[in-house]
Amino acid sequence: MRRGTNLPRMGDFNQSVILEAIRRSVEGLSRIELVEATGLSAQTVTNITRRLLDEGLIIEAGRTINGPGKPRVTLRLVAESRFSVGVHLDPAVITFVLLDMAGAIVRRRIVRVAEQDPRRVIETMALTIDALLDDADIDRRRVAGVGVAAPGPLDAERGTVIDPPKLQGWHRVALREVLAEATGLAVIVEKDTTAAAVGEVWTATSPVDDSFLFVYLGTGIGASLVREGEAVRGSSQNFGEVGHIIVDPEGPPCLCGARGCVEVVCTPQAIVERAVDAGVFDGDHAGGDAQTVEERFTRLSERAGAGDPDALAVLRRAAADLAVLVCVLTNVLDVDRVVLGGPFWARVSDVYLEDIPGILDARSATRSVRTIPVAGTVVGDDVGAVGAGCVVLDSALTPRASDLYLDR
Amino acid sequence: MRRGTNLPRMGDFNQSVILEAIRRSVEGLSRIELVEATGLSAQTVTNITRRLLDEGLIIEAGRTINGPGKPRVTLRLVAESRFSVGVHLDPAVITFVLLDMAGAIVRRRIVRVAEQDPRRVIETMALTIDALLDDADIDRRRVAGVGVAAPGPLDAERGTVIDPPKLQGWHRVALREVLAEATGLAVIVEKDTTAAAVGEVWTATSPVDDSFLFVYLGTGIGASLVREGEAVRGSSQNFGEVGHIIVDPEGPPCLCGARGCVEVVCTPQAIVERAVDAGVFDGDHAGGDAQTVEERFTRLSERAGAGDPDALAVLRRAAADLAVLVCVLTNVLDVDRVVLGGPFWARVSDVYLEDIPGILDARSATRSVRTIPVAGTVVGDDVGAVGAGCVVLDSALTPRASDLYLDR
Repeated sequence: MRRGTNLPRMGDFNQSVILEAIRRSVEGLSRIELVEATGLSAQTVTNITRRLLDEGLIIEAGRTINGPGKPRVTLRLVAESRFSVGVHLDPAVITFVLLDMAGAIVRRRIVRVAEQDPRRVIETMALTIDALLDDADIDRRRVAGVGVAAPGPLDAERGTVIDPPKLQGWHRVALREVLAEATGLAVIVEKDTTAAAVGEVWTATSPVDDSFLFVYLGTGIGASLVREGEAVRGSSQNFGEVGHIIVDPEGPPCLCGARGCVEVVCTPQAIVERAVDAGVFDGDHAGGDAQTVEERFTRLSERAGAGDPDALAVLRRAAADLAVLVCVLTNVLDVDRVVLGGPFWARVSDVYLEDIPGILDARSATRSVRTIPVAGTVVGDDVGAVGAGCVVLDSALTPRASDLYLDR
Repeated sequence: MRRGTNLPRMGDFNQSVILEAIRRSVEGLSRIELVEATGLSAQTVTNITRRLLDEGLIIEAGRTINGPGKPRVTLRLVAESRFSVGVHLDPAVITFVLLDMAGAIVRRRIVRVAEQDPRRVIETMALTIDALLDDADIDRRRVAGVGVAAPGPLDAERGTVIDPPKLQGWHRVALREVLAEATGLAVIVEKDTTAAAVGEVWTATSPVDDSFLFVYLGTGIGASLVREGEAVRGSSQNFGEVGHIIVDPEGPPCLCGARGCVEVVCTPQAIVERAVDAGVFDGDHAGGDAQTVEERFTRLSERAGAGDPDALAVLRRAAADLAVLVCVLTNVLDVDRVVLGGPFWARVSDVYLEDIPGILDARSATRSVRTIPVAGTVVGDDVGAVGAGCVVLDSALTPRASDLYLDR
C-alpha cells in the first residue's frame, strides 16, 4: 500500500525546499522572496530560516532597502558549511575532488592506477581522500560523505562493481563497504553516467524541474536521464546500458552476435580503430590499451581540428553513428533536451555539435511538434568525479516528494 | 524554484491514499487496518473515512468481531459511485468501454470505421458514448470523463493525433476539444501504449509501487513504462516511440534509410509479409490493408498453433526480433519485469512467451545480478480501451506525491 504523510515529514520537506531555493539563487534571497518562490506562508519561512541559521547552513548577508517598510535581509548559503568527496574510478586514472555545498571544487587530485589489485586500489583511494581532507583542513563532521562514480553495471544492493572494463580482478568487490570502513565516511557507489547527470543538475543554473538525456562519452558509452530535476536510476540503479543498441547495420561484428552495436562503433577504442584503418596514424599499429587509445583519440581530434580530411571524416562518421543512438534514446525517453559530456567529450565537441543536432531533427519521432536542443555539458572533463560528489550532496540536501511518505 | 507544501495539500493527498488502499483491497479494510497500511494516525483515518462515506465513495459493509474490544467495521469501495469511458481509436475499429471505479467493464461496444472523415468519426464516437451511458442508465455527474487511446505520436498540448497510420485526413485534428464539446464530458487523449500500461496497473493486483516495461503489439509496436505505480509519459507525452530501433541488421530496408527496424520486422504487417514470402498462405497475394493483415495474422497464428512448421518458423523469428527490442529497452530503462500485451498479443502469446524470456536472460546487461521476468497482460485484447478508461480514473483518484506541491 502507498503510505500517507504527516506534519513532521512536511516540515523536513519544506526545509529542504527553502535551502534549495537559497542555494540556487546566486545573490541570495530575502524571506519575502522565499515566500513568493516556494508558496509557503511567511510564518513557515521565518521558522525554517531560523533553523537553517542556527545550523550554520545559511547566513544573513546584508540588508536591502526597497521602498518604504522594513529593510529586507538577504539570506545566503554558507557554501563551506558542508562538503563532499567525489571519486571517479576509471580504468587508467582515478580522479578525486572535494566539493563545497555549492558544488564548487575545493581540492582536486589525480592518481594513475598501475596496481590492479582491488584491495590496494581501495587503500589508495582511502589514503588520497584522507590527504585531501587534511590538506583542506576540514572537520570531518562537515563532510556529508564520499561518492564513487564507477562504470556499470553495478550491483547496487551490495555496493559492488560487477565487471569494470580493463580492471581485472574486480569481480564483486564490496567497494562501498570496504571504502566506508577505510575512511570512516558514508559511501555511495553510483554509475558514472548517472553521477555525471546529477553533477549537471547540481552545478547548472537551469530550472529546478529540468529534464534531459545525458549521453556520456567515456571508455564506454552510457546514457542517463534527469526528469524534473531528479536522476532516474532504474530498478537496480543500472539505468542507461546502451552498449548493444545497433546504430549501423553495416558496421563491424560485435561479440554479442549482432553488428554495428554502439560498443563497436561509438566508443573511443572503436573510433581509434577506424582511424587506424583510415591511415590517420601513418601505419602506426601500436596496442589497444587504455592509455594508447586515449593518446590516439587526442591525436585524432587534434588532426581533425587542424583540417586533416581523413581524421575529420572518421569523427564525422562517429558523430553520425552517435546521432542514431541519440535518436533511439530521445524517441524512447521523450526528453526536452540532450546534453553530451564525459571524459572524452571535449575532444570531439566541435564536430559532434555541428552534426548531431541536424540528424536528430530529421529523424526524431516528434519532429513535427518540436525541436530537441543538443548541448555540451557545463561541468567539463571532471564530470564523473564532480558528479559523484554531487550525488552525495543531492542525496543529503535535495527535497524529494517521496521523502514525504511515512516509513513502514 | 521548487514549491513547498501545506496542510490542505496534505489532507487531499492522504484522502487519495486511503481511497486507494480501500479500492485495492479485495475484501475491504477496517479503520485499524488502514492505520497500519498507510502509517496515518487513527484520528486522520477516522476523519478521512467520514468524508469518503459522506461522498458515497465507500460504504460500511459489515462488522468483524476479532477477540475482545469493539467489533471492526469493514469499509468497502462503492465501485458504481464513479465511472469513466474508455475509447480505443484504431485504424479499422473503435472500441468503447464503460468502466466502474474498480476498473470493471460495465458496457462494451465495437464500431467498424468505414468513414475516414475525422469530424464524422468523432461524431460517431460522441453518439456511441451517449448510447453507452443511456443504456447503462448512468447519471453523467458520476462520469469522471472520457479517455481516448490513440496511436502516437500525439501533440499533447493541443490534444491532437499527429499522423495515425491508415487514418488519412487526420492531420492535426483537435480530437480532445471536439469530442469534449460533443459529449459535454472532460476528455483526455493518451497514447495507446501508455493507456495500456495504466490499464495494467489499475486492474492488476500487483503492488502499488509496481515497475514494469509494457511492450504493446498493435498495428504498430510501442513501449510504455510504469515506475512505482505511475506511468512515465515523457516531456511531450510521447514516451516509447520504438519503431526505428534496429533489431535485425540483415533485415529488410526501412523508409528511414536504415534496415531491420522494428517497424519493418516486428509489426503484424511485417510478420504477415514474411509469412507470405515463406509460402504460408499458399500463393495467396491479396492486398495489405488493415483488415487483410489482421485476418492473415490470425490465420498465421492458427497454423502455427496447429503445428505448421513454416508458420511456426515465421512466428519464432518474429519473437526473436521482438526479444532484441525488449533487450534494448530493459537495458536502457532498467525495469523489474516485462509485460507484453496489446490487440495482437493473444494470437502470439504462446510462441513469444516460450522464446523471449530465454533470449532476454542471455543478453540482459544485468544478467549476472538478476533475471527479468516476462509475462502477458492481465487485461486482454481490450487493453487499449480499458486503459483509456483507467487513465481517467487514475488521473482523478490516484495519489501523486507531486500533487502535494503548492500551486504557482
